[in-house]
Amino acid sequence: MHSFQELSVDFTRHFNVRLFPLQPQSLYDPCEYFLTMGGKRIRPVMCLMGNELFDEILPDAFEVATAVELFHNFTLIHDDIMDKAPLRRGMDTVHTKFGESTALLSGDVMLIQAYEHLNKVRTTYLHKILALFNKTAAEVCEGQQLDMDFEKTEFVTFDDYIKMIGLKTSVLMASSLKMGAILGGAGGSNADHLYQFGLNLGIAFQVQDDYLDAFGDPQKFGKQVGGDILANKKTFLMIHALDVANEDQKNELNDLLKVNEPDKVERVLSIFEICGVDEWARQLKEKYIAVAFQHLEDIAVVSVRKKPLHDLANFLVHRDY
Amino acid sequence: MHSFQELSVDFTRHFNVRLFPLQPQSLYDPCEYFLTMGGKRIRPVMCLMGNELFDEILPDAFEVATAVELFHNFTLIHDDIMDKAPLRRGMDTVHTKFGESTALLSGDVMLIQAYEHLNKVRTTYLHKILALFNKTAAEVCEGQQLDMDFEKTEFVTFDDYIKMIGLKTSVLMASSLKMGAILGGAGGSNADHLYQFGLNLGIAFQVQDDYLDAFGDPQKFGKQVGGDILANKKTFLMIHALDVANEDQKNELNDLLKVNEPDKVERVLSIFEICGVDEWARQLKEKYIAVAFQHLEDIAVVSVRKKPLHDLANFLVHRDY
Repeated sequence: MHSFQELSVDFTRHFNVRLFPLQPQSLYDPCEYFLTMGGKRIRPVMCLMGNELFDEILPDAFEVATAVELFHNFTLIHDDIMDKAPLRRGMDTVHTKFGESTALLSGDVMLIQAYEHLNKVRTTYLHKILALFNKTAAEVCEGQQLDMDFEKTEFVTFDDYIKMIGLKTSVLMASSLKMGAILGGAGGSNADHLYQFGLNLGIAFQVQDDYLDAFGDPQKFGKQVGGDILANKKTFLMIHALDVANEDQKNELNDLLKVNEPDKVERVLSIFEICGVDEWARQLKEKYIAVAFQHLEDIAVVSVRKKPLHDLANFLVHRDY
Repeated sequence: MHSFQELSVDFTRHFNVRLFPLQPQSLYDPCEYFLTMGGKRIRPVMCLMGNELFDEILPDAFEVATAVELFHNFTLIHDDIMDKAPLRRGMDTVHTKFGESTALLSGDVMLIQAYEHLNKVRTTYLHKILALFNKTAAEVCEGQQLDMDFEKTEFVTFDDYIKMIGLKTSVLMASSLKMGAILGGAGGSNADHLYQFGLNLGIAFQVQDDYLDAFGDPQKFGKQVGGDILANKKTFLMIHALDVANEDQKNELNDLLKVNEPDKVERVLSIFEICGVDEWARQLKEKYIAVAFQHLEDIAVVSVRKKPLHDLANFLVHRDY
């Protein structure tokens, strides 16, 4: 069994080669540029880990992992266009550097390239892998659309938000694990428990992301604290605060959401603290991670094989960066 | 054997159902909206015809045909964003009606849906169909990128233009035919000849499109004559005119390309006529269609099976609308 860190090194070695043709440069260089920005490569490594839970890692798993990472990067390129984001990881986004039309098209061809890697999967598993990948890919688009719809909706319920995050963030983690499991010959029940592990872990991961944005140590987190607050994003924290705040606090929050006063972050955080949002978020995260671990427990393989997934989950939801 | 018109009715019956989920409406209704705009459905019917050249039409061929038509519509939705086109077939484009972000995402999910139809192909042919589809899809993106590059290039050679049109227009026709042939059990040589038939037919088709835009009867063509001229598009006609014109004519054309004077179309057409561009285009079209027919001839099946393809090719390059 290998740890996340070890498999991450393996995957990076496999992934950090030129994946696109040389010509036309104007189409493919933007793809390569975006991939050099790096990333934690969590999803593809999850695919390898899902595979190793049941068997030795097969070459096919690296192809599916590559497809997953290309898909994830395709969504980022297109999301950046939709969000009009000038920077990602401190570098120019593709549309900033190469123009919107090329960014759109480079994203498209990256998705197509993902399918080309899926087509390297052995025939026995090809239908099953494609079906899960297609379902997941459509769900991620649905999640992004719901997220955009929510920007125009005044009142977003906690359940709606969970549903959106599930689609936008969790299903890709869940299905990366499950695709690895399928390639490892896992039976239906084991593969489904692993999927549910990923789904619940994904929610806990997002809660932690929202938490760090508000309460993280800016030195460690590497991003400006309160970025979500300044962007008026409806996060787990904001939705819960609006849910439990009294009338005065609610009015203040709604007023703060309309303009960007210099003390906006400070004042929102102060309401968050009065409402106990930080403690609530910690409990919410623990609730989801407990469900995730129960599903991991229910997978019928010896415990020792589960350790790397256990460690990864603990890291993802307790990280401070 | 069935004619294009007969198969077109069959395909339309198959295709004109709700192809996307109901929810979220904000993502999927734009997809359905775009498909109701209609279209000639040339490519999917070519897939059925490629299949019937070798065997009775299989259900799989309808799935691949659906994938091809979804892919084609995905490219149109994204092209309309890139071109900032307000209308298509007299109706609002998706980004005009629903906004750019939703148009981008609806296009994405339409491409994913195309792959879901490909995944219904029987296992024996799945790898082969996917490989050809992926290659073609990437080439279409390359063609669109080259087309955008050419807008910023002062001097585009005839060979560069042929290459771009081949990628942007012909390969999808060629591979639609070939995917049908593969499903019909065609051998490599027959399938390749059919591909080459489609490739050359596609070029001839585009020459006719460019020709009609300049010299067509607006009553029959259904579009404003000279639309390409007003949009300063580098068409077969413009590239050839710039190639053969004398210095004075060349300077006049280049001046006309810079501004939109009221008599622009008239003056460009007059130079086209002096340079014999219309006759040249007719000959060019005949040259490509002759090569296409030679490849059709070389396919080892009885002539009578080839008749519908022969008729379709003649229609596509001699149509006046």
